[in-house]
Amino acid sequence: MNIEREQVIAAARGDIPMDLVIRGANLVNVFTAEIYQADVGVKDGRYSAIATYKNNEPSFHMTGEKEVNAKGKYIMPGFIDAHVHIESTLVTPDMFASEVIRHGTTTAVIDPHEMANVLGVEGVTYMIEASQGLPVQILTTIPSSVPAVPGLEYSGAEFYAEDIAELFKLPGVVGIAELMDFPGVIKQSTRMSEIVQTGLTHNMLNEGHAPRVSGRDLQAYLAAGVNSDHESRSKEEVLEKLRAGMMVYIRESSASQFAHVVAEAWQEMPYAINIAMCTDDVEPNDMFHNGQMNRVVRRTIEEGVPAALAIRFATLGGAMRYGLRDQGAIAPGYLADFLLVDSLETMKVNDVYIKGEHTVKDNKVIKEITSPIKPLLKNTVHILELTEKDFFINAPIDSGQATLTTIEFTDIGTTVQGEVLLDIENGVVANLPEDFAYVTVINRHGRYQKPFIGVVKNAGIKDGAYATTMAHDSHNLVVVGKKPADMLIAANKLKACGGGLCLAQHGEVLAYVELPIAGLMSPEPISSLAKKVEAFNKCAIELGVSVGKRSPAMAFSSIALTVIPDIRMSDLGLVDVVKQELIPLFKSTIK
Amino acid sequence: MNIEREQVIAAARGDIPMDLVIRGANLVNVFTAEIYQADVGVKDGRYSAIATYKNNEPSFHMTGEKEVNAKGKYIMPGFIDAHVHIESTLVTPDMFASEVIRHGTTTAVIDPHEMANVLGVEGVTYMIEASQGLPVQILTTIPSSVPAVPGLEYSGAEFYAEDIAELFKLPGVVGIAELMDFPGVIKQSTRMSEIVQTGLTHNMLNEGHAPRVSGRDLQAYLAAGVNSDHESRSKEEVLEKLRAGMMVYIRESSASQFAHVVAEAWQEMPYAINIAMCTDDVEPNDMFHNGQMNRVVRRTIEEGVPAALAIRFATLGGAMRYGLRDQGAIAPGYLADFLLVDSLETMKVNDVYIKGEHTVKDNKVIKEITSPIKPLLKNTVHILELTEKDFFINAPIDSGQATLTTIEFTDIGTTVQGEVLLDIENGVVANLPEDFAYVTVINRHGRYQKPFIGVVKNAGIKDGAYATTMAHDSHNLVVVGKKPADMLIAANKLKACGGGLCLAQHGEVLAYVELPIAGLMSPEPISSLAKKVEAFNKCAIELGVSVGKRSPAMAFSSIALTVIPDIRMSDLGLVDVVKQELIPLFKSTIK
Repeated sequence: MNIEREQVIAAARGDIPMDLVIRGANLVNVFTAEIYQADVGVKDGRYSAIATYKNNEPSFHMTGEKEVNAKGKYIMPGFIDAHVHIESTLVTPDMFASEVIRHGTTTAVIDPHEMANVLGVEGVTYMIEASQGLPVQILTTIPSSVPAVPGLEYSGAEFYAEDIAELFKLPGVVGIAELMDFPGVIKQSTRMSEIVQTGLTHNMLNEGHAPRVSGRDLQAYLAAGVNSDHESRSKEEVLEKLRAGMMVYIRESSASQFAHVVAEAWQEMPYAINIAMCTDDVEPNDMFHNGQMNRVVRRTIEEGVPAALAIRFATLGGAMRYGLRDQGAIAPGYLADFLLVDSLETMKVNDVYIKGEHTVKDNKVIKEITSPIKPLLKNTVHILELTEKDFFINAPIDSGQATLTTIEFTDIGTTVQGEVLLDIENGVVANLPEDFAYVTVINRHGRYQKPFIGVVKNAGIKDGAYATTMAHDSHNLVVVGKKPADMLIAANKLKACGGGLCLAQHGEVLAYVELPIAGLMSPEPISSLAKKVEAFNKCAIELGVSVGKRSPAMAFSSIALTVIPDIRMSDLGLVDVVKQELIPLFKSTIK
Repeated sequence: MNIEREQVIAAARGDIPMDLVIRGANLVNVFTAEIYQADVGVKDGRYSAIATYKNNEPSFHMTGEKEVNAKGKYIMPGFIDAHVHIESTLVTPDMFASEVIRHGTTTAVIDPHEMANVLGVEGVTYMIEASQGLPVQILTTIPSSVPAVPGLEYSGAEFYAEDIAELFKLPGVVGIAELMDFPGVIKQSTRMSEIVQTGLTHNMLNEGHAPRVSGRDLQAYLAAGVNSDHESRSKEEVLEKLRAGMMVYIRESSASQFAHVVAEAWQEMPYAINIAMCTDDVEPNDMFHNGQMNRVVRRTIEEGVPAALAIRFATLGGAMRYGLRDQGAIAPGYLADFLLVDSLETMKVNDVYIKGEHTVKDNKVIKEITSPIKPLLKNTVHILELTEKDFFINAPIDSGQATLTTIEFTDIGTTVQGEVLLDIENGVVANLPEDFAYVTVINRHGRYQKPFIGVVKNAGIKDGAYATTMAHDSHNLVVVGKKPADMLIAANKLKACGGGLCLAQHGEVLAYVELPIAGLMSPEPISSLAKKVEAFNKCAIELGVSVGKRSPAMAFSSIALTVIPDIRMSDLGLVDVVKQELIPLFKSTIK
């Protein structure tokens, strides 16, 4: 019989040398929440033995083929990101891995929700296959909400319980991804009940998404067997969820930073056990400059959680959630995925070792990370042949005035419903006021319909047009613009290149970011993509785009997100999110 | 599709009534380590919703088909005993369940080590089959050390890796039981290495047993993948094990009470996460009078651990260890196994509900607990036809004197090696001094050999004989006595009834406890068996038996335990435990 750990045990005994000994670092023990000096011996990819110090001497002496003096540094387990969408980084799994590893993430539990909405089973399969064999371990939860809101929009696919059961067979699948349709779970829609049941039947985790869900609703959601969440926005929400037995993930994404609410809750229940960490959505330029999981850890510590506990949440927390029995801690027999960090304040990751192999040095990847799976380059922008005329708003009268329902952006980026009286000339809306722009969401998943055009207020855009195929959750083609001619150019550019972001002005393409994989991702590294996004953002700001101040590249990525109040647009028209129904554009006309 | 939790969710929403509502008890929340007032709603065997109180009112109102006013009581999850030998209770699994449930245990992870040593695969299979379908959930770890010390003794079976792999297929098997041969694991004997590898290959837990294992040895044991332990005897031992990533079980058995050492360690590392609880071995009369898991909890609280954390260790601790995702806590969606307790000081269990069914009321089982599996009644006492002469010690000389090696009991019940000069007459040892007795360990597993007779000092027995088939770990027939004639009578009584405990004096049986299942267990309830054991103990004390003061029924159950220093006896003769070798009885003779 092959004894896998033969050498690991022999090295622990001291009969043979270690492959690697890290000497004298401050070890973050996530089991006991202590930090103390130790030598760490690694053999055959696993920790073999750890010798703690007493009176400046290790309790036993290890020799290694390689030895690293790490005095003054901190050694801690690699981070486990409990919930992340690779697509938000706009790159493929190997490029994602190449970047997140620099920020300490050695395991990521992904939800390929965007790929699922565009390419269905093919998209999810690609993401899983392209995630195998990377130094960052990628586990997958199968998207549960494809499309997010059936009936109000068309995406590229529909997932039912049987599709999800089929996808469970792929490698590294650990659960069903965030069940965003919490009303469907709580009120027991057939589709959601069957999906959750499928998770239970297959002994998979049912991951949750329950913003502001409370009281009986929260109890019902948990009773169904959905018992994690990363959407808490207040201390009270965290306290209620932890008490109810929910696994709470501390989340710091590009758009949502809520480490402080979990830290505040922790002050009230310091022995709370069900806490892990995630990044959810991090944009490429944000990640490149500001980090990823290391940022969540740093923020949690800043908010008053002891470092060893914050690091526990970032490591063992995820390992416990996902039943990773030999991961998430530095202990003999565990996989030797670890980090060396100079300072717990900055949490800048100097070195990363994956199964004992030095993979990141001085914050740079020293072994190229690639996948043998080719990027899924296949144009998914399936739209009609368009003309400039298609971007005007056809009115029910030939001339006069009409009152239109509008989407209005507030100062904090949310939307409210408004109305505006506009002139009608030659059967179309004319003379759009300065703070208004045209907006459309064009189905790009092969329905080949004429676009529905509406008006949006306070988007900031002063001229030209802005188009994107990154538009949650169905990722149809969103075009916002002042000039129909430029809107056509921007849309056609994305149709030709297979999707991405595009700005057009004066009849020309001004800037663009190609995302040829499903209109969502680029095969480039994050470093170069981040530069392109920054250049795009600069142009967008020059055009006046004021929505999405943090990153104009994401300005209109949620305008089609028909689950976020008050009003959004889908490929079928204007959506009253609160009532969950389509509403007419024209309220009244004056001939 | 059948949605299992349809009603559970509907009741949480409030659309239908609960089956059961427990109102106003103090809920022990093991996730947050808090205790607060709440109403608990149960539907279809699971918790459906929990309403916490604010200003003396629940946050929402539930109605139930049954409602229980539990104000002033504590409601907590049923206990999970992380490691227990049913055989030590001397009863069958159903009778075990009938008793432990009164002490709050609703899940037990058993190690049928004694049955394995007597009856091998058949014994383990019986234990597993007889454990199915009881209100107490019984999970099984497969015995790893059968026999405990190959070469120095013969038991009824031998387990190798392939036997263990075969037994993994039985229902409710979660791991390999305590790997007592830790030197074999650390030094990598072929047998132990293969057994541990088999556990890893089958994704089973490798349960540990590592008394005083420390330093490099401890690291090697963990590196092998064996990572739990219930044998710590000092605070320092617990600290080292927790730091090394071991799961530490707080143990209070009949013979070993060590809650205080874990409690002391907890004071130094209050955030330690890897702690569970177990009872290991509890004798029937001890359990009947003093409790079982509730005693461990009570003792842990007495030693200064906050009650909510002690109860976490007793519940969620085991659930986390064994991956029981919907057990070990009171939370919506979890199985409704819970206790009502009047006082956290006494930890006397008033009521037990199993999947919402009232099973123990006022500390009495109100639904008979039985198994359809018949007790395995099969005489396993396979020994030669014996005569009185077989119990004398044959000397290598016909007359004179001889110096014999002796087993000497110390005041604290351990053994040391001694010697004694004895008269030889007619070829046998004669005139045994007052503080000496004859002792033998007769193979009862079909080897049909003549008994090897030695001498033991300070056993206390003044007359007659004492015989038992409960003799760890091989459970051969141990007979200790002053009179060969009575030794024969006691041995023959156990041969006839299939094993148990027997006292004989003046040529007659004085007292006995029949254990006809493998010579280890009785089909009786613990309550009646406890009385028999107490009557037996009374007689044994009258005969002078002074070893095993706590329970003379166990006086000689470890005299054949060839892993405990300094000197023991096996069916093959005297064993020097330290050297792990057989040694001669006769040191010298004087004609």
